[in-house]
Amino acid sequence: MSGAKAVREDRLWQRHADMARLGGTPKGGVNRQALSDEDAAARNLLASWAKARGFSMFTDAIGNLFVRREGADANALPVMSGSHMDSQPTGGRFDGMYGVLAAFEALEALEDAGVKTKRPVVAVAWTNEEGSRFQPGAMGSAVFAGYYKLDDMLLAKDWDGVVLKDALASTLEAAPAPLRDGKPGFALDGYVEAHIEQGPRLENERKTIGVVTGIQGSRRYIVTTEGEEAHAGTTPRAARKDAFAAATRIAAAMYEATADADDTLRFTIGRVEVQPGSPNTVPGKASFTIDMRHPSNAVLEAHEAKLKDIVAKKAAPCAAAIERVTNVAPTDFDPKVIDLVRAKADALKLTNMDMPSGAGHDAMHIAKLCPAGMIFVPCERGISHNEAENATPADLAAGARVLVEVLEELANR
Amino acid sequence: MSGAKAVREDRLWQRHADMARLGGTPKGGVNRQALSDEDAAARNLLASWAKARGFSMFTDAIGNLFVRREGADANALPVMSGSHMDSQPTGGRFDGMYGVLAAFEALEALEDAGVKTKRPVVAVAWTNEEGSRFQPGAMGSAVFAGYYKLDDMLLAKDWDGVVLKDALASTLEAAPAPLRDGKPGFALDGYVEAHIEQGPRLENERKTIGVVTGIQGSRRYIVTTEGEEAHAGTTPRAARKDAFAAATRIAAAMYEATADADDTLRFTIGRVEVQPGSPNTVPGKASFTIDMRHPSNAVLEAHEAKLKDIVAKKAAPCAAAIERVTNVAPTDFDPKVIDLVRAKADALKLTNMDMPSGAGHDAMHIAKLCPAGMIFVPCERGISHNEAENATPADLAAGARVLVEVLEELANR
Repeated sequence: MSGAKAVREDRLWQRHADMARLGGTPKGGVNRQALSDEDAAARNLLASWAKARGFSMFTDAIGNLFVRREGADANALPVMSGSHMDSQPTGGRFDGMYGVLAAFEALEALEDAGVKTKRPVVAVAWTNEEGSRFQPGAMGSAVFAGYYKLDDMLLAKDWDGVVLKDALASTLEAAPAPLRDGKPGFALDGYVEAHIEQGPRLENERKTIGVVTGIQGSRRYIVTTEGEEAHAGTTPRAARKDAFAAATRIAAAMYEATADADDTLRFTIGRVEVQPGSPNTVPGKASFTIDMRHPSNAVLEAHEAKLKDIVAKKAAPCAAAIERVTNVAPTDFDPKVIDLVRAKADALKLTNMDMPSGAGHDAMHIAKLCPAGMIFVPCERGISHNEAENATPADLAAGARVLVEVLEELANR
Repeated sequence: MSGAKAVREDRLWQRHADMARLGGTPKGGVNRQALSDEDAAARNLLASWAKARGFSMFTDAIGNLFVRREGADANALPVMSGSHMDSQPTGGRFDGMYGVLAAFEALEALEDAGVKTKRPVVAVAWTNEEGSRFQPGAMGSAVFAGYYKLDDMLLAKDWDGVVLKDALASTLEAAPAPLRDGKPGFALDGYVEAHIEQGPRLENERKTIGVVTGIQGSRRYIVTTEGEEAHAGTTPRAARKDAFAAATRIAAAMYEATADADDTLRFTIGRVEVQPGSPNTVPGKASFTIDMRHPSNAVLEAHEAKLKDIVAKKAAPCAAAIERVTNVAPTDFDPKVIDLVRAKADALKLTNMDMPSGAGHDAMHIAKLCPAGMIFVPCERGISHNEAENATPADLAAGARVLVEVLEELANR
């Protein structure tokens, strides 16, 4: 039996349902933020499945969780697949989790089919991909790849001031797995990540498999304005330094400046804070986050200059600043992995199309370490980062079938 | 000795310093929100001072706290003075607290001077004037005056979902005073409230006493926009329903529409909420508060129509709504009380000017029950609702001297 034939659609779907209960929301989504109790519960559940199948498990110093199926050659570098189990605060059941469960399904399918591979095959759940609780996102894979320093990340704070190091310690205590060693990162021979598309193209084009060619670049910023708190009833407009009025001018100008004609630039203000937040006090401080993405670094660079110009020109009489928090360059995946994904989809008679990824993924960091690629499956109406996120059992299984075939071939090279 | 001569500047200043420690902030302001532990501590401290002077104390069912100095005629209606002890989240040491301490100083001064009055004189600390934790503001005086229903107010919730009834019970348990009876409100013969100006006019005109002629009208609104959460990296602009982009368009248009040529209209967006608040998710919901004030009801009415029009026109492709939360009409104070304040300031050789109040005060509700007025003293640079709020010991004492003279005359009518 081939690995692809051993993929079980019902098992994969049931595992999604089991995971969706951990942090499940009344609207059918999940709130399973990085290093929360819900994250710990998801790790425990995955560990219980791994144990039942006799796979070995370990974590590294940033909490990345690895499930390993041995290969014939104990000295061969492993091939790896996975994604993340943390979610947005009002996230869906498939973003990230599908990539972890598809990788685990691949390990099980290889086991069930009695397939021996030369190299070990490892399923991974990366820590804190979303970056909604602790910034920056894709943290676990970035630390693994040496893009961020472990010690810096351990000091990250969430919006309530909780230090990542402490949250990580609690999570690992609740969901124990042996630490591999003090340092994250080890050599890999290949990496393939399965994920829902999080956009509408596969559905619109009626294709089952997205052969992902690369990931657009992304930059994050925080804009802060500072004015002076004052009484809302007594302070004339001319005497005000209203931090939110300044933030509004800046945001309005930014929305306008980023409205490109071909609608390729992605510009999002996602988090907004206004201080002191009292209805009858003129705000003294405001801040908002910017997430900006485009496949071309040059376009990102040009728009960053525009954003800076707007902050400088629109803030008066308040002070304002824009700080770049992250800058992830566009990623091009390995042509051989891209070709392999396409060939396996074709061989399985699954409709497919080449496409770039609009979203960032852990694969962008791992692509610096070894040949890497991604497999997309459709999600309903392209909706993601939303409790209504949805996908079909058949599409999820189709992606897992392509994945196991790709992993088997990579693991025998 | 006259009451005015018995006012002690050092005592009044020391009491401000003592109160400023309760909820004191590192920047020298206070965070003593309504019905918090800090509010309870302030009530306890006032009670200890009242007890030491032999004044009787009681509270009513909304938590208003009364300190009573008896008059010669047990059947005569009392005259009252006071303000509030709750503060903004980042408030100052004088807003509200001055009016309570000036009233208490008046009681002590009458006592020290051995002045007998016909009527009782009552100092009051009204519950929840600020309205920053529980909406609406000026709650205690409004319930006392029958403007809001007690039962409705007891169900108010703060931003964390705490019900006012529970917060009130905890506060009264921590700071006990006998409840007068189930219902708030009792008949009064007169009311005078001392307060810092919270604007720059007295300082600019180099006057010590503001003879307050009335209070401008104020209306509060909540604007909500609703779109659809979506992934910040994959969702094209044309497919977005970005609730914060809609809120920004609406807010920008409102700032423009309320920029009146004579700078009399006060328009403030003070509290802003964006959901889910994740940097890489397109916001699905946003809301903000509006505080709008003007001395003319007709002007408020006209601008309310403009705000509604903006919400209707600028929201697409999101849905949006504007809800009016409060509508307090302009207040005109009693001409006889206004004249009395002016006459006493003149008699004490204190520079003074007639002026309206830009801010709302508890006096606006009590003015419906009995002849009422207010006394303003300068505050530094007009800054209020700000931790930097400041006033001089001499100005505070000057206001208290006018107050005690006015109260003595009212209490002997």
